[in-house]
Amino acid sequence: MTASVFDHPILSGLLGDEEIGAQFAAVAELSAMLRFEVALADAEAAEGLIPGAAPTTIAALQETFTADIEALKQSIGRDGVVIPELARQWRAALGEAGKDLHFGATSQDAIDTGLMLRLTTVLSILDQRLGAVIAALDGLNGRFGGKSLMGRTRMQAAIPIRVSDRLSSWKTPLVGHQAAVQEMLLAGLPLQFGGAAGTLEKLGDKAVAVRARLSDILKLSDRPQWHSQRAVIAEIGGLFSQVTGSLGKIGQDLALMADNGTAVIGGGGASSAMPHKRNPVKAEVLVTLARFNAVQISGLHQALVHEQERSGAAWTLEWMILPQMAIAAGASTRLAIDLLQSVEEMGDR
Amino acid sequence: MTASVFDHPILSGLLGDEEIGAQFAAVAELSAMLRFEVALADAEAAEGLIPGAAPTTIAALQETFTADIEALKQSIGRDGVVIPELARQWRAALGEAGKDLHFGATSQDAIDTGLMLRLTTVLSILDQRLGAVIAALDGLNGRFGGKSLMGRTRMQAAIPIRVSDRLSSWKTPLVGHQAAVQEMLLAGLPLQFGGAAGTLEKLGDKAVAVRARLSDILKLSDRPQWHSQRAVIAEIGGLFSQVTGSLGKIGQDLALMADNGTAVIGGGGASSAMPHKRNPVKAEVLVTLARFNAVQISGLHQALVHEQERSGAAWTLEWMILPQMAIAAGASTRLAIDLLQSVEEMGDR
Amino acid sequence: MTASVFDHPILSGLLGDEEIGAQFAAVAELSAMLRFEVALADAEAAEGLIPGAAPTTIAALQETFTADIEALKQSIGRDGVVIPELARQWRAALGEAGKDLHFGATSQDAIDTGLMLRLTTVLSILDQRLGAVIAALDGLNGRFGGKSLMGRTRMQAAIPIRVSDRLSSWKTPLVGHQAAVQEMLLAGLPLQFGGAAGTLEKLGDKAVAVRARLSDILKLSDRPQWHSQRAVIAEIGGLFSQVTGSLGKIGQDLALMADNGTAVIGGGGASSAMPHKRNPVKAEVLVTLARFNAVQISGLHQALVHEQERSGAAWTLEWMILPQMAIAAGASTRLAIDLLQSVEEMGDR
Amino acid sequence: MTASVFDHPILSGLLGDEEIGAQFAAVAELSAMLRFEVALADAEAAEGLIPGAAPTTIAALQETFTADIEALKQSIGRDGVVIPELARQWRAALGEAGKDLHFGATSQDAIDTGLMLRLTTVLSILDQRLGAVIAALDGLNGRFGGKSLMGRTRMQAAIPIRVSDRLSSWKTPLVGHQAAVQEMLLAGLPLQFGGAAGTLEKLGDKAVAVRARLSDILKLSDRPQWHSQRAVIAEIGGLFSQVTGSLGKIGQDLALMADNGTAVIGGGGASSAMPHKRNPVKAEVLVTLARFNAVQISGLHQALVHEQERSGAAWTLEWMILPQMAIAAGASTRLAIDLLQSVEEMGDR
Repeated sequence: MTASVFDHPILSGLLGDEEIGAQFAAVAELSAMLRFEVALADAEAAEGLIPGAAPTTIAALQETFTADIEALKQSIGRDGVVIPELARQWRAALGEAGKDLHFGATSQDAIDTGLMLRLTTVLSILDQRLGAVIAALDGLNGRFGGKSLMGRTRMQAAIPIRVSDRLSSWKTPLVGHQAAVQEMLLAGLPLQFGGAAGTLEKLGDKAVAVRARLSDILKLSDRPQWHSQRAVIAEIGGLFSQVTGSLGKIGQDLALMADNGTAVIGGGGASSAMPHKRNPVKAEVLVTLARFNAVQISGLHQALVHEQERSGAAWTLEWMILPQMAIAAGASTRLAIDLLQSVEEMGDR
Repeated sequence: MTASVFDHPILSGLLGDEEIGAQFAAVAELSAMLRFEVALADAEAAEGLIPGAAPTTIAALQETFTADIEALKQSIGRDGVVIPELARQWRAALGEAGKDLHFGATSQDAIDTGLMLRLTTVLSILDQRLGAVIAALDGLNGRFGGKSLMGRTRMQAAIPIRVSDRLSSWKTPLVGHQAAVQEMLLAGLPLQFGGAAGTLEKLGDKAVAVRARLSDILKLSDRPQWHSQRAVIAEIGGLFSQVTGSLGKIGQDLALMADNGTAVIGGGGASSAMPHKRNPVKAEVLVTLARFNAVQISGLHQALVHEQERSGAAWTLEWMILPQMAIAAGASTRLAIDLLQSVEEMGDR
Repeated sequence: MTASVFDHPILSGLLGDEEIGAQFAAVAELSAMLRFEVALADAEAAEGLIPGAAPTTIAALQETFTADIEALKQSIGRDGVVIPELARQWRAALGEAGKDLHFGATSQDAIDTGLMLRLTTVLSILDQRLGAVIAALDGLNGRFGGKSLMGRTRMQAAIPIRVSDRLSSWKTPLVGHQAAVQEMLLAGLPLQFGGAAGTLEKLGDKAVAVRARLSDILKLSDRPQWHSQRAVIAEIGGLFSQVTGSLGKIGQDLALMADNGTAVIGGGGASSAMPHKRNPVKAEVLVTLARFNAVQISGLHQALVHEQERSGAAWTLEWMILPQMAIAAGASTRLAIDLLQSVEEMGDR
Repeated sequence: MTASVFDHPILSGLLGDEEIGAQFAAVAELSAMLRFEVALADAEAAEGLIPGAAPTTIAALQETFTADIEALKQSIGRDGVVIPELARQWRAALGEAGKDLHFGATSQDAIDTGLMLRLTTVLSILDQRLGAVIAALDGLNGRFGGKSLMGRTRMQAAIPIRVSDRLSSWKTPLVGHQAAVQEMLLAGLPLQFGGAAGTLEKLGDKAVAVRARLSDILKLSDRPQWHSQRAVIAEIGGLFSQVTGSLGKIGQDLALMADNGTAVIGGGGASSAMPHKRNPVKAEVLVTLARFNAVQISGLHQALVHEQERSGAAWTLEWMILPQMAIAAGASTRLAIDLLQSVEEMGDR
């Protein structure tokens, strides 16, 4: 089944992003959740809540454990989350030490923290990619910046500007987005750790200390649980959509420029009916990805209405939307780099 | 990569739909497009536009041809559509007869018609599923319809109604959706056939006759090309979202009923922190799927702004959204049937 | 306060629609709700549920009653709906006969039925407007249809078509939308009548007969109450958005044609910085209205998750969205007529 | 016409916000744009671009000028923006000094800068309101924080928590939103100043100096023009939606708590059919406003695809959406304060 273009064996060649997409593979998810459990054992052992030998035993799962995916798939139709069955499998593999795994934690702790670990990687990739887009724009500015270009407002010729003026309007928002990404990375995405209903009731007076250790080990920021407070998800999604939006504007402009002859784009796609024709496919797809994420961001804001201590309905909605927004942002940067590097001419003829 | 929960090896156990999802697998797409080409050859041979032997040769591809998926993936990054490279592969497999394949057609003809063939299957499945949901509701009505239930308006107890009153408010919209699905199937989804820019310019005075034959062979409705007229996509997507919306209301109601004890739902999901707890997972997920499709429908309406004779940007946006809406509708019916069949009690205690 | 461009004393000159907007003025709402109450009294008197003289007394309110708007405004902050206080005012004006007003009905009956009465008028206006847009397109076809026009696919010149080919792709969806509007009008929008929790419990065995009479008097279709079944709202909103979407495509095309010189649009807007420049304002605004409604339709589908017998949250969301979608559709048809009538040339130069 | 509930003479009693709404009245818009023109004259006179006496003459318009609203309304149907006709009216009122008004500026400079001035006021109001919501939550915590409350996850009883745990999950995001608002205010919203196509071509080597003076006078942050870079609009809209989302969660929780008896809310709305019933209207409406803004945010992200130097289509879309999002955020804070102050009991009975 290939519901999503991002997973599609063919369409992913246009719309996918292997590097960012890899962060949303099941294996990456399982691995990130186990990383949470290992760090949790470390932190809890350090605070004397579980035996000192437990972390080593649990950490060994990272080498030795292979999940029974089919059993996980069966279980999620019933449980709605992967952790009950996954913890069962982990514990079965651990034997006696199994009782020390996931102590005091709940599904959301492992899943949301695992997500934050993977999003940290995603943001790092985006940081680099945005840098490369900016460099490509600088490159174009060096080559064509001084050329004249008819400025166009409201779809009509206005007054002449220079190519560098337009390039600058493309670059400025990206510099802002990169700064926002870097700021998020510097602050650290938040650890999620709250236990059954957010109170870490099983950890007693060690709760805050364990949480601090845990965030330290995982290089996430330490804050009280945010089970039902999903602003961070909407904020990260908003940043993904800002990225695709700003690149969508570049794509729209380049498609118009290719059409009116003020840009020459190399490469470009074939038509089955008109083999001579070269289509500005990547420019168009930047617009597509922008509109896609602009649609999706609505869903993450709907998910802010997250009732009581944990909403299965709202949380699951995030799972359906956020990964695709991340990959769309990644694909958008990838395509923008390719597209800008393929520009052969800019400016009035 | 598993961008979408529908493709996810684990999460699809909760959120996926194998039967409807299969219609969006790459293999199903390729097969449907080839079905278009075979029918086109039949129609064109019958009108004397290509040799009489060509259809048989082309039809044999259905048995013998295996696509080079990797080459297709490479090509789409450049062409934006699969057909140029796919037609090249088909033609290479056909040898001499290759020149008779795809005659007078364009990418959109094969892709959009292939989609309509697959959506016909999707709608047939939904028709059956809606029937099963309705039957499950009728079953509940038979068991619990006469029981009293406190009617609740604005989240507060209002006046007593009967369980059958609420079941009726769940059923009525579904009956309407099923009728709408059946009406679409009866009318036939539309053939797309227009050639390079919609004018079938290569077919001369045989254009209308070929189109009529083609729609007849494929059991699609005959109408002039709709390259840039995407109302049908928004309409089908709207129906998918109506289905998930009406089932989402049922899910929301059942979750509230499970909470206040006016429904007892069997099965239900485990919590990793509270093994004793049973969660109304499927009821919650019906709400999730409703909100998901309510988000996505916006994208299909954005794609109505489809510029000129063909918009790569708007068309690609449909590819990103419509399959997931179809699968969400499918999953929603599947879960609703399971959920309703697991109801053990309804009505005031 | 002028939150909405449609209500704005200046911007409504561009974006508003006086005729359709008038259906959403408070006075029109109050009048439609009173029309429901008068018809209800007629129907209930005919079935012997209230005294035979009551309808005449109640009907006289249509001439004599002036609402205390400030008191209604105060009450709605508390009640969430206008009817409790409005019924109090009506009853105060009626004196003794007041007890026969609104018998067995609830807020939603008056409000939703009043909406359906006003939407019937809105659809009639849209029907006429779509006819006028189609006539304008036919007029352009008569003048310019035979001229050559470079077909453009994926933002690039493809092969030559005729102006009539493009005009036909503009017209076809509108013909479909007009047919859909007419079909809705022919079937009749649905009466809403259910009483406190949908069961018309106060009307005893006269419930169905009263409902039949009521729908007959109001020229609405008779169906059981749909308090919590909001498919009809999403469907009507979907039609509004289909209209703006199809007209948005025309606007997008005309803006591109004005830019590349294949259309000359008369009139057009001034720039404060470049007095010589003529902007294709109405063409652009058609795109705006299409994107606006494509955003809003999402909200009506979210409102399908309408919990229990009546959801204040979901219902109020409809009030925030549907009127603006209707006016956007109206403004879109108005602007399209103006724009098409101002086209001075079409086709390749 | 009352397209929007925010402008509605009755419904605004529930959904409106007079204080924030006032910032979007036409008179406030005209006044803010004139404030821009006066400051521009000051800055340009200081740089010797216009006569030294001009600013005083222009500033006098603030006392003496009354716009001809009807003429503005007529003009906008043609021009798409208010400035050409408004500048004509201002100049007519100024006589000889008219030529020094709006020198080197364009419509977007006055309109977007005027918007930023008004949004600065909106953010200041939100800052205070969020403070009041937080104070109300602190008050509830003082009264009920120590009481026991059954924690509820996935719509089911989980384990007991304290009322303070839930209150804390309500408060934390609001503290974050208030900090974000204050950060925006501290940095200053951005001045927009670019002239016809963003290059301030008429100001020669004084362009940067004038811009610096202008931002200083208006207490906005100085940055190059952002005509076609709309990230700031999406960001501010995102913050509005975060506010309504976080308050929507509180509303949803309180509606559920009122239903299951773990909160007693005073006041509350009447039903026309059940006079004894008290509905948690304000709690429900918080959910409505959250879902409304979650829908609208999509439109601001769509508007990021702002083609070329200025897009009439994308810009107008912002006008249709941002004011309503601001007022929704305002109404949400207003209602939250009322609602929280009316809570009479919290915690398990």
